[in-house]
Amino acid sequence: MSQNIGVIGLGAMGRGMAQSLRRAGYTVHVCDVRLEAAQAFAAEGGVAHAHPAALAQHCEVVVSVVVNAAQTEEVLFGPHGAAAAMAAGSVFVMCSTVDPNWSIALEQRLGSLGLQYLDAPISGGSAKAASGEMTMMTSGRPEAYAKVGQALDAMAAKVYQLGDAAGAGSKVKIINQLLAGVHIAAAAEAMALGLREGVAADALYEVITHSAGNSWMFENRMAHVLAGDYTPLSAVDIFVKDLGLVLDTARATKFPLPLSATAHQMFMQASTAGHGREDDSAVIKIFPGITLPASNK
Amino acid sequence: MSQNIGVIGLGAMGRGMAQSLRRAGYTVHVCDVRLEAAQAFAAEGGVAHAHPAALAQHCEVVVSVVVNAAQTEEVLFGPHGAAAAMAAGSVFVMCSTVDPNWSIALEQRLGSLGLQYLDAPISGGSAKAASGEMTMMTSGRPEAYAKVGQALDAMAAKVYQLGDAAGAGSKVKIINQLLAGVHIAAAAEAMALGLREGVAADALYEVITHSAGNSWMFENRMAHVLAGDYTPLSAVDIFVKDLGLVLDTARATKFPLPLSATAHQMFMQASTAGHGREDDSAVIKIFPGITLPASNK
Repeated sequence: MSQNIGVIGLGAMGRGMAQSLRRAGYTVHVCDVRLEAAQAFAAEGGVAHAHPAALAQHCEVVVSVVVNAAQTEEVLFGPHGAAAAMAAGSVFVMCSTVDPNWSIALEQRLGSLGLQYLDAPISGGSAKAASGEMTMMTSGRPEAYAKVGQALDAMAAKVYQLGDAAGAGSKVKIINQLLAGVHIAAAAEAMALGLREGVAADALYEVITHSAGNSWMFENRMAHVLAGDYTPLSAVDIFVKDLGLVLDTARATKFPLPLSATAHQMFMQASTAGHGREDDSAVIKIFPGITLPASNK
Repeated sequence: MSQNIGVIGLGAMGRGMAQSLRRAGYTVHVCDVRLEAAQAFAAEGGVAHAHPAALAQHCEVVVSVVVNAAQTEEVLFGPHGAAAAMAAGSVFVMCSTVDPNWSIALEQRLGSLGLQYLDAPISGGSAKAASGEMTMMTSGRPEAYAKVGQALDAMAAKVYQLGDAAGAGSKVKIINQLLAGVHIAAAAEAMALGLREGVAADALYEVITHSAGNSWMFENRMAHVLAGDYTPLSAVDIFVKDLGLVLDTARATKFPLPLSATAHQMFMQASTAGHGREDDSAVIKIFPGITLPASNK
């Protein structure tokens, strides 16, 4: 359990994952574009580095928890990128939500450098990341899993192993995002119709959450609407991005996704109207002619 | 508990509801356009009648469990209809899924005849109807609730009382149907993308049902797709009808419902392609370029 492990990106998810690894006994090396975030983590145990290349020299396992594919490219191949500094046989664990075809290509690109790769998007939110109870949707070569060892279980309550090559992990992740995005937009549409029709919003919430029309997202996000609280736990612009990835993936094989396309338009409408950085439940603000519950703060 | 109660319509739901009332000690009067259905019920206890008017002479509470508003009109005002035969002060309990504005008008029409009315759509499926564990979404005047007494609780595990006039019950019911319909279509779209991308369907089901992308309908209906079993528990054409009611209701105040409109198109596409009487999960058959799991029967 003296293995060195690197975590790049100390946002809401990455910081919790690094904490979980430290709690499990790993020596955790960290870096972040905000140097102070890395130093704050190291002050409680672990090693802060100035950039991915410095971190990668010490770690046979590097976990990347940045926002998207572009940031992952920067982490690996930008100035002071990790790829050139990683020892042969080391493994790069990619936890972002990305186009699956990009992830498949990345496995090949790293393979040509003698590096292992794990396609490992995550789900569950910051609280579950901090408690080591999040979910990982993973796929990759058996050698990559072998190299990572118990580290995945230290970070996640549930590690789905979905195949022996990159792609399946990211595919399942974006399909989850397809459903999550459509369900948030549908919850907003349903609640908006209820308000339009003069139904008591709290009664509607009570009935739906105990009926066949319920979804995880209706139950979670419409509580924000009832409270009039659009503090972003996950923002409208995240679904502009993620439903965009879903549509890009399907477009690559000319596959139609009518509901995803419609929901994507709704999130873009909300974003352009100025709600991009609000909670994703603010997609309900695209509906005219209704009065939303006021904040009770 | 010697109260006479009438149940009109002995389909999958009505038969179970009549059984629940009989089990609770009511004398249950029944009729159905299929006379043999009423006679079969009466053979185990209760009284069969040839038509609604004959039934209505014996019952101060008449529960209507027919398919739609048109059939309800026939039950009440057609040849041998119940309305003219019901005693003043009797209550008509309307359990169909209908346009809320039609239900609001019906309360007025029956009121002008001296009859009480309860707007009382139901949810939960035939098994829960038979065991008295279904859900009722009700609204109506206090006098109507008083007249019905304990009968609602005999039929349903949960009786939501949503307002003191007709309309709220039907509004909440169609909003539930909005979500149910969009969620079935979204589940089909997500599963179709997974199949298109070569993801193992059973693994996808396992991950989604334990993730934030889950819905009651994904969990229930995609099990039918995995089993290749499109035996209709609820048919594609039910959602052609119910999402149509949702859109009609919103159109009455010019209110936009982009996801409902898209899902409605998907169900109509499935119906016109010949799948209207299959299980509603057969909406997945509109997606080209994929191979669905075969039946394992």
